[in-house]
Amino acid sequence: MGSSFHHFILVILCSSCLLGAVAAASSPKTRHFRWEVANMFWSPDCLENVVMGINGQFPGPTIRAKAGDTIVVHLTNKLHTEGLGIHWHGIRQFDTPWADGTASISQCAINPEETFVYRFKVDKAGTYFYHGHYGMQRSAGLYGSLVVDVADGEKEPFHYDGEFNILLSDWWHKNVHEQEVGLSSKPLRWIGEPQSILLNGRGQFNCSLAARLGNGSSSLCSLRADAQCAPQVLRVQPNKTYRLRIASTTSLSSLNLAIGNHKMVLVEADGNYIKPVAVDNIDIYSGESYSVLFTTDQNPSKNYWISASQRGRKPPVPPPGLTFLNYLPNSPSVPTSALPQSPAWDDITASKSFANKIVALLGLPTPPIRHDRRIFLLNTQNRIDGFIKWSINNVSLVLPSTPYLGSIKHKLKGAFDDKSPPETFSSNYDIRIPPVNPNATQSSGVYKIEFNTTVDVILQNTNALAANVSEIHPWHLHGHDFWVLGYGEGMYSEEKHGKQLNLKNPPLRNTVVIFPYGWTVIRFVADNPGVWAFHCHIEPHLHMGMGVIFAEAVDRVKNIPDEAIACGQTGKMFMHNHHG
Amino acid sequence: MGSSFHHFILVILCSSCLLGAVAAASSPKTRHFRWEVANMFWSPDCLENVVMGINGQFPGPTIRAKAGDTIVVHLTNKLHTEGLGIHWHGIRQFDTPWADGTASISQCAINPEETFVYRFKVDKAGTYFYHGHYGMQRSAGLYGSLVVDVADGEKEPFHYDGEFNILLSDWWHKNVHEQEVGLSSKPLRWIGEPQSILLNGRGQFNCSLAARLGNGSSSLCSLRADAQCAPQVLRVQPNKTYRLRIASTTSLSSLNLAIGNHKMVLVEADGNYIKPVAVDNIDIYSGESYSVLFTTDQNPSKNYWISASQRGRKPPVPPPGLTFLNYLPNSPSVPTSALPQSPAWDDITASKSFANKIVALLGLPTPPIRHDRRIFLLNTQNRIDGFIKWSINNVSLVLPSTPYLGSIKHKLKGAFDDKSPPETFSSNYDIRIPPVNPNATQSSGVYKIEFNTTVDVILQNTNALAANVSEIHPWHLHGHDFWVLGYGEGMYSEEKHGKQLNLKNPPLRNTVVIFPYGWTVIRFVADNPGVWAFHCHIEPHLHMGMGVIFAEAVDRVKNIPDEAIACGQTGKMFMHNHHG
Repeated sequence: MGSSFHHFILVILCSSCLLGAVAAASSPKTRHFRWEVANMFWSPDCLENVVMGINGQFPGPTIRAKAGDTIVVHLTNKLHTEGLGIHWHGIRQFDTPWADGTASISQCAINPEETFVYRFKVDKAGTYFYHGHYGMQRSAGLYGSLVVDVADGEKEPFHYDGEFNILLSDWWHKNVHEQEVGLSSKPLRWIGEPQSILLNGRGQFNCSLAARLGNGSSSLCSLRADAQCAPQVLRVQPNKTYRLRIASTTSLSSLNLAIGNHKMVLVEADGNYIKPVAVDNIDIYSGESYSVLFTTDQNPSKNYWISASQRGRKPPVPPPGLTFLNYLPNSPSVPTSALPQSPAWDDITASKSFANKIVALLGLPTPPIRHDRRIFLLNTQNRIDGFIKWSINNVSLVLPSTPYLGSIKHKLKGAFDDKSPPETFSSNYDIRIPPVNPNATQSSGVYKIEFNTTVDVILQNTNALAANVSEIHPWHLHGHDFWVLGYGEGMYSEEKHGKQLNLKNPPLRNTVVIFPYGWTVIRFVADNPGVWAFHCHIEPHLHMGMGVIFAEAVDRVKNIPDEAIACGQTGKMFMHNHHG
Repeated sequence: MGSSFHHFILVILCSSCLLGAVAAASSPKTRHFRWEVANMFWSPDCLENVVMGINGQFPGPTIRAKAGDTIVVHLTNKLHTEGLGIHWHGIRQFDTPWADGTASISQCAINPEETFVYRFKVDKAGTYFYHGHYGMQRSAGLYGSLVVDVADGEKEPFHYDGEFNILLSDWWHKNVHEQEVGLSSKPLRWIGEPQSILLNGRGQFNCSLAARLGNGSSSLCSLRADAQCAPQVLRVQPNKTYRLRIASTTSLSSLNLAIGNHKMVLVEADGNYIKPVAVDNIDIYSGESYSVLFTTDQNPSKNYWISASQRGRKPPVPPPGLTFLNYLPNSPSVPTSALPQSPAWDDITASKSFANKIVALLGLPTPPIRHDRRIFLLNTQNRIDGFIKWSINNVSLVLPSTPYLGSIKHKLKGAFDDKSPPETFSSNYDIRIPPVNPNATQSSGVYKIEFNTTVDVILQNTNALAANVSEIHPWHLHGHDFWVLGYGEGMYSEEKHGKQLNLKNPPLRNTVVIFPYGWTVIRFVADNPGVWAFHCHIEPHLHMGMGVIFAEAVDRVKNIPDEAIACGQTGKMFMHNHHG
């Protein structure tokens, strides 16, 4: 059945290579999608497993639209007993905060056999994605790409001849229900490293594509051309420039992407243009997206590897996820060259250097010069009744059963913890050592934010529970892009670091990392009424409480559809009014 | 850590042995329970797995009450993304049909972090149990015992000195989500045989307690006394009479229970007294319960096996579930005698003989002499769009997202299929061969039943899709006991069989089996307004559509709590009234 590794025909990545003439300008469209979410058997990394798919596909269908379009997704839950919610990562949901897809925050989970209609505008061109935002359904495979082109008549500020899109993820053989139980157990059972890194949902477990490059091991792949785990090969013409869109929806892994022999030029981050900068490889954390340009100017008689390698976590880690550039008219056989070099897993200096290269393209909005409010968020690992949690200012987030958007809008009492979490932490906290008092509390409290205030958030990393451990956390903000004003090491100090912040050309992003023992400062304007999660995008960290909730000018939210909030106390309110 | 099989101290089954003086008569009580359902790690058969437990226990806590008491269970869903419902199997729910626990039928699934209050009366002494009734959550381990004693001042019609309770189940190592996906796949992936048979949630996989009785194999158990899979031993005094309560909540397995060297006397079936009858062993199908009396009149220097063996399915099947009688003051070491004999797996004659021994105790209500309505239900295995299903009169049941109880009571249009399923089937149907036209349809239609009519149901078994296969199906009726008027072979014929039916002393039951290629006739009086499922109690068969719905005098149902039906179209109705 299977042909050998050397000869098999790989799946060709369907791309819009070599764009034709620009279509005539037309007004924005409403694009309708009918999706059914169900569990199904699938072999993401050549090993069969149960995967959460959409319309029988994994990853889910790619949404492609133009800036200004309206997306309408009729999402039907065909799971047997599980609720559901899908978040449109990077879409700000102006005027539609109930469409953000965060169960318990912006809406009730969609029950089995129910259909919820997501309707929202994609106002800005860029590389986005979507994913489940309930329990750990993202880890179960519920994700896909969302690409927004410039509106008709508009142009990107760079040229390319064709494009490709790669959505990165990581994959475990243990099902998410078991992962969840382990994370909620005392003692904690950590999920461990993923078995595979996937590119567009495709990886190779125990059968590295690149095995032949190693020590002559015999673990060669014997993939059928139509195998669900066969890599999508990027077919390119020589001497052209391509745009490669890359987004990461990993549960855990920080990745580094590189193309053998090819330089890349970064041009977009999280749906925002950046000042073009040449790089050899790119770091990409969960929740981030980039566009890079590369030119097919290398020896055209060869093919070239593309690798996505795990970073920041101590080996053993999974082998890199792989695919390759197939220079046409070569046959799509695997490259004979070495894998591209990624920095060592613990080369944090390279990571910081990469992060600091990213600044906004000239002409993009710059931040207000002053903040109106400043929130310090101390990231710590803690114990609560002996259970290991992640906490922010000593508070570990638990979500209420009634979505905040409804309970705050309708001023319901008791739907979540009244008390807002602290805005800062003790200046005596020693971030270099494990917490002296590791006990924390759990709360569903929110930060209330007034309309149009300029908010600075200082994310402060610390040492975890074990000595000499400080982890990377990519923080993602819903409903907003924010400016990244700066990164630094040690404890943030206004006197020492305030002056170093970049107010001139900070990049706009929706996700930003804090480095081990470091700090990151961001700024955003609270111009989008809604309830927005701001959280570590590592799925098990969020599950362990690593997030906060911004309740932003909710009094200004109008016309929440009843069906978004017909559960918990808002559901009871509807029933009460029914009898009253 | 573990001591060897021969020496370890077994867990002693906590029993109410040697009852003391009867307590003074008092009025019925309301008994409150606060339960949290969560997934947890557990080792039901010595192999660790994820199990759905209640308050950290598996099986869930035993409810013990007296006839006339009111049970109040505050059930909180601590699952991460799954809904929930618990059915109180054998409790008829007079005046509380919304407390029957059937998701999509009597109530909305309870969402994560929500609490639903089940409040119902246990009006009749007997041996019952409870279990999840949403998706395949029963298979996930969500079950426990419910025992109702006679009211104070009342007496059982038989004497005993002490009692024990055994809840039987079967266990798979593959999680139910994967089982569900397999059952919903094309081609079907059958769940296969269970890995273990459990007694009160305890079995031994790959380490048969009885291994030493075999061919000298070395697979001896090395169990710790406190192991979750260590059998509960029944400690007995010589020369006493004990009541053994047995209920089966298996997903699939038909079982035969026997006690080495000891005769048993059947005295109760499904919470109804039966004419005492001596038996060597008892057949018990999923959904059934029995009480037997046994006297400890054997050699008191020995201990004796109790075995629960699978029946009716072709080997290889799991080894029997085991525990034993420990005659005091012997040490609780495993018996040296042979395992008790159960009939051969395919000895259907023994099964029929056993079934026909069960008749009502004199003095119990007899059925009305005539039926007002008769419903014939043909049990067939079918294909729908190539998917394998089970169907009744060619209709495979699918449940609506809005619970029937609310949508019928409030006369909502379109919440389920208008059309009632057929009341009979073609008299030309050849039950001896695979269906000539295997195609069926799916429907959520219901049988509407008028108040106080006497209904006969003729269950007719057939050949499945494969030649020479006809399976056993235990049918369970909610909201009612019914009289079992008779069993027979081949096609039911009024002329031939009508006269043979037992109207004199048919047993009252809530579950009854149809034998391969056979028929079974039951009768009940529609005196309990509500919406009641009647279905095959084999979990994967129900999942594949093997059930019907009786909508019984729903206009007479009063005071449905809003929270029971605040989902789907009834939920929308509440919202609509809110705005209207």
